Amino acid sequence: MDIRKYTSANFGEMDKTFRRNFFNSLTGFKSLTLIGTSSEQGLPNLAPFSQVFHVGASPALLGVLFRPLTDDSHTLRNILATSFFTCNHVSPHFFEAAHQASARYPLATSEFEAVGLHTEYSELKAPYVRESVVRIGLKLAQEVKLINDTHLVVGEIIEVFAPDNIIGTDGFLDLEEAQIVTCSGLDSYHTTQKLARLPYAKQ
Amino acid sequence: MDIRKYTSANFGEMDKTFRRNFFNSLTGFKSLTLIGTSSEQGLPNLAPFSQVFHVGASPALLGVLFRPLTDDSHTLRNILATSFFTCNHVSPHFFEAAHQASARYPLATSEFEAVGLHTEYSELKAPYVRESVVRIGLKLAQEVKLINDTHLVVGEIIEVFAPDNIIGTDGFLDLEEAQIVTCSGLDSYHTTQKLARLPYAKQ
Repeated sequence: MDIRKYTSANFGEMDKTFRRNFFNSLTGFKSLTLIGTSSEQGLPNLAPFSQVFHVGASPALLGVLFRPLTDDSHTLRNILATSFFTCNHVSPHFFEAAHQASARYPLATSEFEAVGLHTEYSELKAPYVRESVVRIGLKLAQEVKLINDTHLVVGEIIEVFAPDNIIGTDGFLDLEEAQIVTCSGLDSYHTTQKLARLPYAKQ
Repeated sequence: MDIRKYTSANFGEMDKTFRRNFFNSLTGFKSLTLIGTSSEQGLPNLAPFSQVFHVGASPALLGVLFRPLTDDSHTLRNILATSFFTCNHVSPHFFEAAHQASARYPLATSEFEAVGLHTEYSELKAPYVRESVVRIGLKLAQEVKLINDTHLVVGEIIEVFAPDNIIGTDGFLDLEEAQIVTCSGLDSYHTTQKLARLPYAKQ
């Protein structure tokens, strides 16, 4: 196996698409989350995100990284306007619909309807995806702009919906058992096969 | 399948270990990265991290979330002292060594030696993992403290090592082909099986 070295000079020579795919896939496998929001007028919005990560257990916090703000940033604008959003994990039977929700639909279009997924509401001012078996309800807790104008949104987890049978006695959610999808780059979707759970590492 | 609802009140009733496992696994599959650093005295350090994510392609940036700073935060302290770090993806043949590197070794111990992995150096002031087939060299670009005292480190990607045969003509790195591992929660390791790569979604 030949290992190739890429330097900053090589990055500069990459065309835009190559560079985008290269760095989006470089950081490893990612979670795939459909984020549900409502506009101030109550119109549901849905879009897939893969820069979602654990921030803390107590208080329960989750982070999402958003691209720089444009007119098309419906999800981020809705979160800033209403303070609420949902994160919905994706299963193999609707990963294509999840991907399709990334298309640039006009503001007045509900991606739920456009891609054939269904809203489900709790008391939260944001829609869940009914087809999703692991769902997280959040309230905006912090917003930070990073050096490249991306926006980090930290949400406080307010409620969680998950199947009884995937929650271990130690609190671990077996996402593989729930058939949750992982993704890579901008467009590659994968299921998983467990190697092992390992005991707490001691010196 | 019975879906259970957990509210903030339920979170408060969870014991510490349950809560830690629950929220660490809730956010979905994650990349598993061994971060290599050097102390100011040149002593190599290695530790596994799973809150690593894509921040931007141009400039090429990657983010890592670190727990609140303590005396044991060797990786974060080394990055702040030297400005450099490496991210090394993990394969099935050494995921157990990667996990073992999370044990609390004293500052004077090199985790490389303790877990049986090997350093490899370029011009960068931080060690790579020789066993890793996809490696990223970074320079500290931004540090932000979040509301729960976790530290977000944004690194500028300076160099990348990857096998020739996994890099597509469109720049996509096929991490599954390279047998890169994904993880879930604090201790669960997985390989992947591709469902599909999907074309750019249009309305």
